[in-house]
Amino acid sequence: MAELRRDPIVGRWVIVDTDHPSSPEGFEYEQYIPKGAGVCPFCYGNESQTPPEIECFRQPGTAPNTSGWQVRVVSNKFPALQVEGELDRRGLGIYDLSNGIGAHEVLVESPYHMKDISDLLNKEIEDVVRMSCRRSNDLSKDKRFKYIMIFRNYGSAAGASLEHPHTQIVALPMIPKNVAEEISGAKNYFDYRERCIFFFFFMQETQEKDRIIFENKYFISFCPFVSRFPFELWIMPKKHSGYYCQMSEEEIPALASILKDTIARIKKVFVNLSYNYIIHTSPINGDGDVDYYHWHIEFMPKLTRVAGFEWGTGFYIDPTSPELAAQYLKAIKD
Amino acid sequence: MAELRRDPIVGRWVIVDTDHPSSPEGFEYEQYIPKGAGVCPFCYGNESQTPPEIECFRQPGTAPNTSGWQVRVVSNKFPALQVEGELDRRGLGIYDLSNGIGAHEVLVESPYHMKDISDLLNKEIEDVVRMSCRRSNDLSKDKRFKYIMIFRNYGSAAGASLEHPHTQIVALPMIPKNVAEEISGAKNYFDYRERCIFFFFFMQETQEKDRIIFENKYFISFCPFVSRFPFELWIMPKKHSGYYCQMSEEEIPALASILKDTIARIKKVFVNLSYNYIIHTSPINGDGDVDYYHWHIEFMPKLTRVAGFEWGTGFYIDPTSPELAAQYLKAIKD
Repeated sequence: MAELRRDPIVGRWVIVDTDHPSSPEGFEYEQYIPKGAGVCPFCYGNESQTPPEIECFRQPGTAPNTSGWQVRVVSNKFPALQVEGELDRRGLGIYDLSNGIGAHEVLVESPYHMKDISDLLNKEIEDVVRMSCRRSNDLSKDKRFKYIMIFRNYGSAAGASLEHPHTQIVALPMIPKNVAEEISGAKNYFDYRERCIFFFFFMQETQEKDRIIFENKYFISFCPFVSRFPFELWIMPKKHSGYYCQMSEEEIPALASILKDTIARIKKVFVNLSYNYIIHTSPINGDGDVDYYHWHIEFMPKLTRVAGFEWGTGFYIDPTSPELAAQYLKAIKD
Repeated sequence: MAELRRDPIVGRWVIVDTDHPSSPEGFEYEQYIPKGAGVCPFCYGNESQTPPEIECFRQPGTAPNTSGWQVRVVSNKFPALQVEGELDRRGLGIYDLSNGIGAHEVLVESPYHMKDISDLLNKEIEDVVRMSCRRSNDLSKDKRFKYIMIFRNYGSAAGASLEHPHTQIVALPMIPKNVAEEISGAKNYFDYRERCIFFFFFMQETQEKDRIIFENKYFISFCPFVSRFPFELWIMPKKHSGYYCQMSEEEIPALASILKDTIARIKKVFVNLSYNYIIHTSPINGDGDVDYYHWHIEFMPKLTRVAGFEWGTGFYIDPTSPELAAQYLKAIKD
């Protein structure tokens, strides 16, 4: 019989098929092979094809918006939201609306069109992490913004419209629904137990061990007990902190290393995989300290399609238990 | 500048691109052309390949599980949940789980492998509606169930694994998250205004008129002000009722007719379209009367991919305003 599992933060139930689980060979997923051809605005030499750079790590002596950079941040050419203007929130009968104020930046992760994060050197990944923290801190200074959403779409099935690997950073004038739910669930738990729920996650996962994939001094990666998707993976810092962008300088190499390990492993189990990952962090410009929330990364491989059942219920059907997924992922050797 | 619009029921914000809207030609969607080949368990003559029929509209004198049927309901061969057993809810550290109890039925909509709902006769669609109400009423008698989710996946991009058009009916032992949110939002509104929020939807839409596509005596179809997806469509009964399965006999032909019209229109704008639709109705085996909720159908064409931004925020980016989408859909002639 399948197992129903309940997420203790947001109360979402997931149906885990423990009877007839799918092995990696059982998934017919859309494979992603970047074409690499054509002119790419994110490649060396094409810097003039993007909006001007906002921030950049580049070789000393090179001019802005020329080659010689390692990580480059530009405005999205087709931004979902724009920086200039007023929010001007207003009513229209029973509806509410406002102007589309925000920021939408693109962080080009390296000059290499064909290199995913797992193909970069640790030092190069550290720069990606460092830059996303810097942009997040910078955007947080704008008091109109309430949340900085950092995410990554890799591959066509994950909704990436440009091949050249990049991270997106969106500053929002309101706390998004999914974040508000997670924060409120975590806060309720804290009010009840006076300790962050993620501490208990960490305790239970490290005791049971069967969902942990990898750990280093500062981070663990594991398949969460209430995975929505097969082979869903979370990366969580061991040290309590509500904010991704407040990561300490010594944690950055550890995050770079576990990111590389995680992506390399899942791409060995599923070749040419598309995936999304999302940095879950606390809202900004609010109360200040957050002892009830713990930032982390949620990694979602695109192996299945979301269909009517999931759209209607908000429940998910996971054909591979996280315990089994962890076994496959742990078995991968370098 | 884009417009941010807020859903008054669940508080979800949507970014509507009103500056550079996408016209129908602007969408590169995965087209769906059913192959029609091979042996299909839902076609005439193959009745023995499915689990035994639960309920069926068939020609008098024909035996169960043989040809001669018009609409046929069977258990899902690979059910997400199963009927036999106890829920047995239990804790596991900070997590909660239970057995996968429920029901998962498939309603085969007609004997025709290649006919979508819009290709059926009105009378045939009425039978589909009538049967889904019957199954819903029957499953509601089981006091273990709290919700009957009726939905339809049409086409590969919508997650349909079998080509032969069918509706799925899932009985759940708990109220799903998305439904609970919608009900709670509608209830809050009712507590505040002492009238169902859907009444105000109806009033505003029929006054403003620019999002309405079609109406008949009992139903209207419109593109909601806070559409999550381009060309999202809702079908709403004019008469207040919390329960889909309590639809009156005279409403059934009107629903069949507006369903046929809706699907035919959207498939003329987007050939070979995949889509999901979901019946939003009240939970069962609860308080009885629901004056605060109004059942309706939400229709989601698969024109865009859901990516990291949507997964992370629960916000959506709609590249075609519902006002513009309604214009295209209204312009379709029979």
